[in-house]
Amino acid sequence: MKTIGVIGGGAWGTALAQCMAESGRALTIWAMEDEVVSAINTAHENTPFLPGVKLNPSIRATNDIHATLASDIILMVTPAQYLRASLRPIKDAIANKPIVICAKGIEISTGKLMTDALMEEAPSAIPAILTGPTFAAEIGRGLPSAVTIAARDSKTAEGLCDALACRTLRPYASDDLVGAQVGGSVKNVIAIASGMIHGLGLGDSARAALVTRGLAEIARLAVAMGGKRETLMGMCGMGDLMLTCSSMQSRNFSLGAALGEGKTMDEILGARNSVTEGVYTARALATMAKDKGVDMPISAAVHACLDGGLAVRDAMTALLERPIKAEGK
Amino acid sequence: MKTIGVIGGGAWGTALAQCMAESGRALTIWAMEDEVVSAINTAHENTPFLPGVKLNPSIRATNDIHATLASDIILMVTPAQYLRASLRPIKDAIANKPIVICAKGIEISTGKLMTDALMEEAPSAIPAILTGPTFAAEIGRGLPSAVTIAARDSKTAEGLCDALACRTLRPYASDDLVGAQVGGSVKNVIAIASGMIHGLGLGDSARAALVTRGLAEIARLAVAMGGKRETLMGMCGMGDLMLTCSSMQSRNFSLGAALGEGKTMDEILGARNSVTEGVYTARALATMAKDKGVDMPISAAVHACLDGGLAVRDAMTALLERPIKAEGK
Repeated sequence: MKTIGVIGGGAWGTALAQCMAESGRALTIWAMEDEVVSAINTAHENTPFLPGVKLNPSIRATNDIHATLASDIILMVTPAQYLRASLRPIKDAIANKPIVICAKGIEISTGKLMTDALMEEAPSAIPAILTGPTFAAEIGRGLPSAVTIAARDSKTAEGLCDALACRTLRPYASDDLVGAQVGGSVKNVIAIASGMIHGLGLGDSARAALVTRGLAEIARLAVAMGGKRETLMGMCGMGDLMLTCSSMQSRNFSLGAALGEGKTMDEILGARNSVTEGVYTARALATMAKDKGVDMPISAAVHACLDGGLAVRDAMTALLERPIKAEGK
Repeated sequence: MKTIGVIGGGAWGTALAQCMAESGRALTIWAMEDEVVSAINTAHENTPFLPGVKLNPSIRATNDIHATLASDIILMVTPAQYLRASLRPIKDAIANKPIVICAKGIEISTGKLMTDALMEEAPSAIPAILTGPTFAAEIGRGLPSAVTIAARDSKTAEGLCDALACRTLRPYASDDLVGAQVGGSVKNVIAIASGMIHGLGLGDSARAALVTRGLAEIARLAVAMGGKRETLMGMCGMGDLMLTCSSMQSRNFSLGAALGEGKTMDEILGARNSVTEGVYTARALATMAKDKGVDMPISAAVHACLDGGLAVRDAMTALLERPIKAEGK
């Protein structure tokens, strides 16, 4: 059995570690904060980030990153915008090792995918992505879930699926690194739009229509970047959209809903202490869509509302309705 | 401008008529019940089936079906299981006319698609399908929505989209009659399973995973029947799943939820005066999947729960979890 090293002791890293430990997998988890390391090792609970989940006592936490990097497979569970910075100090230690990136998002400063950042920092690492419709709190509690695990080729992806599958976490293999990553980042922007429709009271039919067009928009960008359209029918696309675009548990959806109800960005973000990734992604997508010549009307509308002062109702109506030339009109 | 005849004065037929009349389209609606005809013509409200929606006064209702069949395009909005019976008396009148079937479902007694029934009864009619994520009450109120309109070829489908588009109802053309129909019927079964997961308290991540696998299962059946996988990424597949599998407004979802909470079929159906289509569809799918050699594990699990006495928790756990062989276990 392969050993697993989890880099990152936040909610998602801890939930993944718990899930795998419960299936008897051998793993260590690296956390930056001493407080997290000691909470996991002594109280068997990650009190700061995943409170209420009793962890399997076999989970060992450490703040010695090189001890964790000795594992056969590395899960990178650092936030998307910090991935590159986290990779720099460890690039030699991860050469020729499968690096499974579990963060979703585009690198906002460069418009690059997570695996592009990995390849630039550690060109001989073996890149992979774990992504799908998962709420960390649910997965930590042992509720069932499924994810896409993508790698450069099917054999690598399938090997990682075998090595990481848990009783309650079912991975599906994909050889499409691009498609798997585009889904997980653009969905945050679609979720903002879905929230706007909810906040405006335009109904569930309209929301389903918009999210479905969101899937088409994500697939177009994925194809333009070298990915496959059909990848987006899986956990990393349709699955993640369905979860994120319907739930107030999603910060992006609830941001859109508040905007739809008439609140301002200052009012909403002032009351939050966490990042709402979709806001930055919408900005990055505006540039990417233009560069690649991809039509992304929903992302453009969200961007125009957030940064361009377009009224939310006008933006959503323009997306959903269309003027009909009828007799005598 | 083409004239439109709506056959069927239920909630969905009335909502479609209202939507089109508001965009200035000329139409008549045929209803079986005198009460409905007179309510629409005099009170401009379909009190029995779509109460609370003030109808456009240009909508004319009639119980003379041949007056309605003189229109250029016919929308058949009769219930799926009665489509064939509704077609028999009018087969000569609909020769060479576009017949847009707006009912979703498989003909349970034969396992056939709606357009197959149409072709058997009226071989020279021009078959088309209008399907997607729509709650009649929302569409009647003028809330925005989108649908798939499918025909045998793109040109016919696009022509129908032009003729039927409304300000608040946006159609997308497809040349895949099979894919468009499979989505709208199988989703009822997936919605029952999604409800079961909700009722069992297994979480939103599990529900998103299951519905995504439901899309894969629907696509496999569609392909086995001659349809295209990618059709299911549209309104007729992903869109309809997203709407039906998340909402207590769906009778199928709420049936599954009640079963997941431990209620019996007798308790649930005893309290309902309307059909829960997914129950019959699950039965028909069991045969179809076997005949065509298609793997449909979710539909099979729902069927086993409804007809075979399998416990709901066992069925869903078997779908979502898997045993992992770990060291020493």
